[in-house]
Amino acid sequence: MAFGLAHRALRPRVPLRHGEGDKHHLTSIEGLAALSLDALSSVAYGPEAIVVVLVAAGTGALTATLPITVVITILLTVLVISYRQVIAVHPDGGGAYAVAKKSLGQRVSLLAAASLTIDYVLTVAVSLAAGAASLASAFPILSSHLLAVCLVLLALLTAVNLWGVAESARALMLPTVLFIISMLGIVVMGILRSHPAAVVGAAHPVRTTEALGVLLILKAFSSGCSALTGVEAIANGVPMFREPRIKRAQHTELMLGMLLGMMLLGMAYLIRRDHVAPRDGVTVLAQLAAGSYGTGWEYYATNLIITLVLALAANTSFGGLPVLMSLLARDDRLPHLFGLRAERPVYRYGVVALALLSALLLNAVGGETHRLIPLFAIGVFTGFTISQVGLVRHWATEQPEGWLRRAMINGLGAVLTTGAGLVLLTTKFLEGAWVVLVAVPLLMLLFTRVQRYYATAGEELGLGRIPPPPVRTMSLVIVPLGEVSRLAQRALTAALALGDEVVAVSVQAEPEKARALQDTWERWNPGVRLEIIDSPHRSLVQPMVAYVRREAGGGREIAVLIPEVEPRHRRYKMLQNQRGLLLATVLRARTDVVVCMMPYGLSV
Amino acid sequence: MAFGLAHRALRPRVPLRHGEGDKHHLTSIEGLAALSLDALSSVAYGPEAIVVVLVAAGTGALTATLPITVVITILLTVLVISYRQVIAVHPDGGGAYAVAKKSLGQRVSLLAAASLTIDYVLTVAVSLAAGAASLASAFPILSSHLLAVCLVLLALLTAVNLWGVAESARALMLPTVLFIISMLGIVVMGILRSHPAAVVGAAHPVRTTEALGVLLILKAFSSGCSALTGVEAIANGVPMFREPRIKRAQHTELMLGMLLGMMLLGMAYLIRRDHVAPRDGVTVLAQLAAGSYGTGWEYYATNLIITLVLALAANTSFGGLPVLMSLLARDDRLPHLFGLRAERPVYRYGVVALALLSALLLNAVGGETHRLIPLFAIGVFTGFTISQVGLVRHWATEQPEGWLRRAMINGLGAVLTTGAGLVLLTTKFLEGAWVVLVAVPLLMLLFTRVQRYYATAGEELGLGRIPPPPVRTMSLVIVPLGEVSRLAQRALTAALALGDEVVAVSVQAEPEKARALQDTWERWNPGVRLEIIDSPHRSLVQPMVAYVRREAGGGREIAVLIPEVEPRHRRYKMLQNQRGLLLATVLRARTDVVVCMMPYGLSV
Repeated sequence: MAFGLAHRALRPRVPLRHGEGDKHHLTSIEGLAALSLDALSSVAYGPEAIVVVLVAAGTGALTATLPITVVITILLTVLVISYRQVIAVHPDGGGAYAVAKKSLGQRVSLLAAASLTIDYVLTVAVSLAAGAASLASAFPILSSHLLAVCLVLLALLTAVNLWGVAESARALMLPTVLFIISMLGIVVMGILRSHPAAVVGAAHPVRTTEALGVLLILKAFSSGCSALTGVEAIANGVPMFREPRIKRAQHTELMLGMLLGMMLLGMAYLIRRDHVAPRDGVTVLAQLAAGSYGTGWEYYATNLIITLVLALAANTSFGGLPVLMSLLARDDRLPHLFGLRAERPVYRYGVVALALLSALLLNAVGGETHRLIPLFAIGVFTGFTISQVGLVRHWATEQPEGWLRRAMINGLGAVLTTGAGLVLLTTKFLEGAWVVLVAVPLLMLLFTRVQRYYATAGEELGLGRIPPPPVRTMSLVIVPLGEVSRLAQRALTAALALGDEVVAVSVQAEPEKARALQDTWERWNPGVRLEIIDSPHRSLVQPMVAYVRREAGGGREIAVLIPEVEPRHRRYKMLQNQRGLLLATVLRARTDVVVCMMPYGLSV
Repeated sequence: MAFGLAHRALRPRVPLRHGEGDKHHLTSIEGLAALSLDALSSVAYGPEAIVVVLVAAGTGALTATLPITVVITILLTVLVISYRQVIAVHPDGGGAYAVAKKSLGQRVSLLAAASLTIDYVLTVAVSLAAGAASLASAFPILSSHLLAVCLVLLALLTAVNLWGVAESARALMLPTVLFIISMLGIVVMGILRSHPAAVVGAAHPVRTTEALGVLLILKAFSSGCSALTGVEAIANGVPMFREPRIKRAQHTELMLGMLLGMMLLGMAYLIRRDHVAPRDGVTVLAQLAAGSYGTGWEYYATNLIITLVLALAANTSFGGLPVLMSLLARDDRLPHLFGLRAERPVYRYGVVALALLSALLLNAVGGETHRLIPLFAIGVFTGFTISQVGLVRHWATEQPEGWLRRAMINGLGAVLTTGAGLVLLTTKFLEGAWVVLVAVPLLMLLFTRVQRYYATAGEELGLGRIPPPPVRTMSLVIVPLGEVSRLAQRALTAALALGDEVVAVSVQAEPEKARALQDTWERWNPGVRLEIIDSPHRSLVQPMVAYVRREAGGGREIAVLIPEVEPRHRRYKMLQNQRGLLLATVLRARTDVVVCMMPYGLSV
């Protein structure tokens, strides 16, 4: 994920209460748990992404995994150093959208918002797809239902987030520690053994379709860069750390970099030594786990932990995107709906939007991780590059002591990530990167159009200006009635209280009934004029609308008061015909009069 | 169908215009076209129903087809004579529901309504299923998609009936005549040939699972009685005939009986002589057609005509059930919705209800005719029996000349149909007849419950009584507002015109915003009091509802006027948040105040 937990900073994972001071801020280790699961969990798909590409040139080509991983680790080192500088410069966190809006202008902020949105969705999809694959490695019966597993996991996450569970960093500690131990265990145990303890999965015939050329290596490199996603999250979450905030965050960033680097290098070494190729029904990481631990309980435990951590990584998007969408809504760039929080402190519409988009995406790729990687990695580098360029600009403007060295580091980061991004875009264009290239401008266009609408609407509504005072006018209340009854009595009572003038209107299809109504009305003599409209075609709504339109205008306030019988029990609702509601809907669509609904409650 | 076109009488197929006199009433032949397609088309499934049952005792058992058909023809004769008497006694037609309501009391009329409803639905299902099978006999590629063919035909019928096409008897003449010629042609040509001209369909192995005992013969008989459905339709349609009405209707009834009898007997003879057994992919009738005409164009033409006539038979239900439902709605036994006719002279809700029920039924049986026969035949006999018993009662009460002979004929009819009905019920109970036995009482219960609701509601609404005059009271209009804007100005203008007293209410989550609003309000000074409600939990709707409830009562009329921004273009609708609508919905559900929506149209 490009800009990671950016907006989570606005909704601290650790609930803050007044007077409890620093106690609820994060230590370095807690920060690792709260902010780096997303980055660490990418070892579940990063190395595999390299292997899947290289194997196209035969199993021999897999030896290239190690050098490619070394380059990726160098890139990681540059990014970590660079983000340590970001932490020092932007201790308020804030995330790419906020930073871009403040210092890089409208257009870049729209770009940031669009990439972020896509990244959040992709993070959910990739993490769940990899989680499902990991679960299926332990329980082969699931391997033919990967998509279903993904969707079940997604449904669970959505439910949890609609419910609005307050996560705490402490709750994340245990899975994080277990995950780090398992992963480092795989590397250490694997290196200690001379050959794999067990081999899992079914071999499938490798068909060599390409030569191991520069293009293939570049492809493998760009796919492998998916392992770098999430390293920016700590930089965005600085406000969540305990004082000294900057030092702790920098320390956590370093820890993350070292752990991730060790895992990636160790795994690449094992892949090379044991000739690990893709096998049916298991992930590459599961093969490494089996090689190091055998297929006893440790194998199952490791796969379950990986699945759990990937699900938690997907969950970070549920913390992020709804908040980003609410910010966009506040900036008039998305429907205001997304800024609504009802009784629970949850942006429901954002959560549902994320769930729907992720489900669509998972369906489109059939729940297969490797088909998501090309889409995923492209956004990552957009985000990295924006952050680094922003910082170079900062150094160049502020020129503090040693700014040149620092600018060079961030500049190198920018150049490397731009390069990697371009490699990715060119090598993966047809495999899915184009989707992102189409989606980003479309989203930016959407944001712009929405903003333009709200600007015009705000202008017409005179928002922010004092309007002229309200005018005092006379009013006419029109009451559509079918017959003389207590409903009519109640409706006229309400109408007389509201209107200066009241008229009852009845649409009648049959002349005899019309006459009968007229007679009854005269006997009742309610003190209100009755107008009967002829409707030979049995239509009720059209003649009423035409009548209202004739009366409208002329400076009077026109209101139509529609009486409606409301049974107490919901099951009887459809027994009362819904002509009133229909009339209300049509009146609201085709006239600009005030439409009043008057309920008449029954005891049944 | 038990009571057939009963209610069609209320909606003459031939549109009547003033001054055109008898010209648009039916001659005997036209009456045959308009009223007997349903009965005649049952030769498409009746004989097959016998064969399908008998073949369980081996192909040898098929010889029993002829004697069984002879018995069915005798039953037909009794019914025809009996219905000729019904025509004489009830020249107003009216149908079983109307007749039962008038002379047999509430409970029997409910029974009649329930059986009629079920029969109409079953007529659609059986006719379409048989039509699909007939079409598939000509075009074998369809035979593995029978259900889909049924549903496509059903969709077509539904569309035509929602559109409201005025059928005319003349339009039905051509298919009727073609159908009669084809069927009689099959019989005559078949008898003239010494052996079948062609054999169609694939033989499938006959497994003998039962002995040819009394039970099997009774089963075959009761299934074959499905060929008798629809013979009551003419008796229900007497008012549609040209004078001398009764004579012409009786003449048509006789023609129908003779035609149907000849077809059934002729076909049974051919089945016996040519050892026609069920074959894969073709209907029995298609086999007979191939046997008489060969497999040239005549074969295709015949099958297409059969399909067309079956579709027209299904269409009779679309003329019948919606009208019956509208009568039930007028009698307060179904939601009044079903009595609504909008711009077109069509009971839309009834048409849709029939389409949905038929689709469900067709789905449940997978579009297979023979699985519908047991359900179908049971209702037929209920209807027959009710009519006959009613007439016996009539004779016994009135005692005209020769009443005893007539009563005995109708009595024999009643006994025979009761007997056939009991046979059917006992032999086919587990095969589907139980469904009808469950559905009929449930429908009757539904009608009763609906009627009871309307009675209570009518009582509470004081329908048919003159209510006390309306009271003049004061009014308070509450206007929920978010900010000071032209929307607020417009809303207060409307509220001041409507209410004796007006109060603006704003729910605010943040104290600073509340203060800012208060300041702006004072600068604006619209002459209306502003109340600010604190809502620390960001909920907007709950505090507003609570406020309204506090104000309610005390003899004042309370109205809540909700201003709503309405974009001109529908696509912008979701950009305006729907809090207004939500508030209106909740207020209507939880309070009994008048809820007014005030639209504020935008130019975008």
